Amino acid sequence: MNTQDMQSFFADEETIDRDVSVIFTYFIETLTSVKEAAASLCQETSTAQWKRPNVDEDFRPRHAAKVISLEPIDEGAASVFSSTAVFGSRFSRARVRIAHPIENFGARLPNLLTVAMGEGAFFSHGITSIKLIDIEFPDSFLAAFQGPQFGTAGLRRIIDVFDRPLFFGVVKPNVGLDPAGFAELAREAWVGGLDVAKDDEMLADTAYSPFAQRMQLVGQARQEAEQITGRPKIFIANITDEVDRIIELHDIAVENGVNAVMLNVMAVGLSAVRMLRKRSQVPIIAHFDCIAPMSRHPYFGVSTTVLTKLQRLAGCDAIIMPGFGERMMTSEEEVLANVQECVAPMGSIASVLPVPGGSDWAGTLPQVYERLRTIDFALVPGRGVFGHPQGPRAGAESLVQSWEATVARIDLAEYAEQAPQLRAAIEAFSAAGGQDDTTDGEALIHGYTGAVLSSVMRH
Amino acid sequence: MNTQDMQSFFADEETIDRDVSVIFTYFIETLTSVKEAAASLCQETSTAQWKRPNVDEDFRPRHAAKVISLEPIDEGAASVFSSTAVFGSRFSRARVRIAHPIENFGARLPNLLTVAMGEGAFFSHGITSIKLIDIEFPDSFLAAFQGPQFGTAGLRRIIDVFDRPLFFGVVKPNVGLDPAGFAELAREAWVGGLDVAKDDEMLADTAYSPFAQRMQLVGQARQEAEQITGRPKIFIANITDEVDRIIELHDIAVENGVNAVMLNVMAVGLSAVRMLRKRSQVPIIAHFDCIAPMSRHPYFGVSTTVLTKLQRLAGCDAIIMPGFGERMMTSEEEVLANVQECVAPMGSIASVLPVPGGSDWAGTLPQVYERLRTIDFALVPGRGVFGHPQGPRAGAESLVQSWEATVARIDLAEYAEQAPQLRAAIEAFSAAGGQDDTTDGEALIHGYTGAVLSSVMRH
Repeated sequence: MNTQDMQSFFADEETIDRDVSVIFTYFIETLTSVKEAAASLCQETSTAQWKRPNVDEDFRPRHAAKVISLEPIDEGAASVFSSTAVFGSRFSRARVRIAHPIENFGARLPNLLTVAMGEGAFFSHGITSIKLIDIEFPDSFLAAFQGPQFGTAGLRRIIDVFDRPLFFGVVKPNVGLDPAGFAELAREAWVGGLDVAKDDEMLADTAYSPFAQRMQLVGQARQEAEQITGRPKIFIANITDEVDRIIELHDIAVENGVNAVMLNVMAVGLSAVRMLRKRSQVPIIAHFDCIAPMSRHPYFGVSTTVLTKLQRLAGCDAIIMPGFGERMMTSEEEVLANVQECVAPMGSIASVLPVPGGSDWAGTLPQVYERLRTIDFALVPGRGVFGHPQGPRAGAESLVQSWEATVARIDLAEYAEQAPQLRAAIEAFSAAGGQDDTTDGEALIHGYTGAVLSSVMRH
Repeated sequence: MNTQDMQSFFADEETIDRDVSVIFTYFIETLTSVKEAAASLCQETSTAQWKRPNVDEDFRPRHAAKVISLEPIDEGAASVFSSTAVFGSRFSRARVRIAHPIENFGARLPNLLTVAMGEGAFFSHGITSIKLIDIEFPDSFLAAFQGPQFGTAGLRRIIDVFDRPLFFGVVKPNVGLDPAGFAELAREAWVGGLDVAKDDEMLADTAYSPFAQRMQLVGQARQEAEQITGRPKIFIANITDEVDRIIELHDIAVENGVNAVMLNVMAVGLSAVRMLRKRSQVPIIAHFDCIAPMSRHPYFGVSTTVLTKLQRLAGCDAIIMPGFGERMMTSEEEVLANVQECVAPMGSIASVLPVPGGSDWAGTLPQVYERLRTIDFALVPGRGVFGHPQGPRAGAESLVQSWEATVARIDLAEYAEQAPQLRAAIEAFSAAGGQDDTTDGEALIHGYTGAVLSSVMRH
């Protein structure tokens, strides 16, 4: 690319009409100059060829993506993608913000994804590593989306709880149980104090647990639990299936008195959420399957925060995401950033409930609360409730007790002396690996380089 | 996990009923033993909790995923995921084959993906890197899918060409051109000898090029080109959009005489292909956007070959994939493996046309043919046809001439002496970076480790 061509992919931020542009932030690494690599990235993601041969025209002024800021980060002898060195070469890294005219793709999620993480971005000349780390939308773009129908406020209104985190629970055994046994477990947990019982992400419509039958029994169990406790309850039906069955499964769930649905969003496609949102009568909960393969590498792929933002935009009301604890292989910083994406100002789009999950139980509740510094989240144990040695009712009770202790600022072990369900949970789960502060996993994943790069990946 | 529990996730391959099982092959790396890591992987992707508390039952015999082979590969001081060492520890690596009962998820793509690359697989205890490298399906599972409606044979019948590769071309300028100018370029290229003109993956339904208007004009241009040349022609409309608009756009395209459609598959979701397949009257072409972020890391994520296989299963008739050449950052071995996935025996599922793409032009055709050793592929230039200095008709003619030279075993430069369009192509494109054998990009991407690991990732 000659200097003049290169210059056509740069613009002063002040000259960009923010109302008609989306701004992508990427981390890039290159063996050429970061400026040339950033220009190539703009070219490949927009006007790859900006004129017809022998026609005097140039589509770049109107249609080209343009670099509006370029912050060099550092250089190194080895690539952050592969830790491979190329003899005699230096890798340069930068954080680049690119304004892209919305008219190139419109307010459509698959077309947005094609630009943001398609061929153009991931096969751009001279780029040795690239990670999409943010997308900023103007309010005019956001206004084209419905966003969450219920969100945090709506979920709280359904459950009628406003002064504490919500207690979700994944019914376990997750695979293999018949609908009657399944519904009985959910009922028990609700009676013990669980607000929201849910299908595991792997349990959908199967021969051993036909969806309609499970919905019927779990819908009845929900009503019984509400009558026994005098409290509203939610069941989340996993309606992950071929995309042309999602509405049908939603309808079956709702007809049977089930009052929330779940999609494994990246397994069905983000766009399926937006489709469902137009029809859904109940909250939509997102599960994080298929996100890690494209997001875990610290300097390649796409940030989890981008996908959290897009799930909120598409219309999810609660987002289950990797939470704290070594098993979840997610740094505390990243969990907090994703929680923040659920509630950050976003034009006309409502806040959604963050549900950081993974190996939680009564004993992790105070730690999660302490880290999040808000009650606007849900805990989502599985075995922590349904694997409780005294059964799921006691498992749910142990959550309630843990929260009582947290509010009263009493140490859990001390509180457990007069709370047998909590005591049994501590005996069963604390040794077996609740959350801890072990950072081997984090160090491994985030250990490429030092603090300079790490701080730059934050936005 | 105790030894007895661990053993419940292993089985002799002979004892597995292949008719009711899918077999996943993973590369795994761990700081514990590969045997324990493989057992955890089975547990997390199936019966995470296999019994109710205080109930005498065990869902593992029927529902657990089970390791049927475990090949240790090597050990190292640093992780292949992040090149990070953990003091005093060794990383062990293995290739593991896991039989998973189909009844856990059914013949449903999103549910299959949830098991194959969801929370269970990517957040499994003790696994420091994991890559899904193959899925084997029994014929009974494949029979639940329609697969390609046309496939390679059907596309050849439409184009009525059986003795050479097909010539695809991406109309450029890809962004910004109005429908009339666009249709005129396609017409010119068809007249010059292009078989198939197509929308760029970034061009869909936009205000500056409304889909219906573009289809109308390009449908007319196709008819004109067929009359002029006496040859059948195809136009591929990019119907990538929100998933509930795909069928509508398909119908608009077909009503206007457009005879193929394209989906950016991972941007809309694999399941959208299967939905479209039930309704489509024309071939479905897949584009590879959004695959690289989850597949490029050699030892993490999911292999491109798995996604090629799944796109074929879902019902694509041709699959555009990263081809040869440094820009495509894909090893020759990986391109060939993906081409093979298009044609390998697959029960009742037809072969699909492989379309390895990226920076191709007349000059790369002989090299692609030489590497593939078959005529059953399509070349898909963009600028190589539509950026030809004499225009797209000459660009298409240069492809035809290149194939004439290839068949006659004449060097391109020599043949170009009497073929001015080919000569102009060589002058315009050969310096500017056609494919070459530079392997810096490959070395960078595949440079983690030596030949041992590399050979094991093949299947």
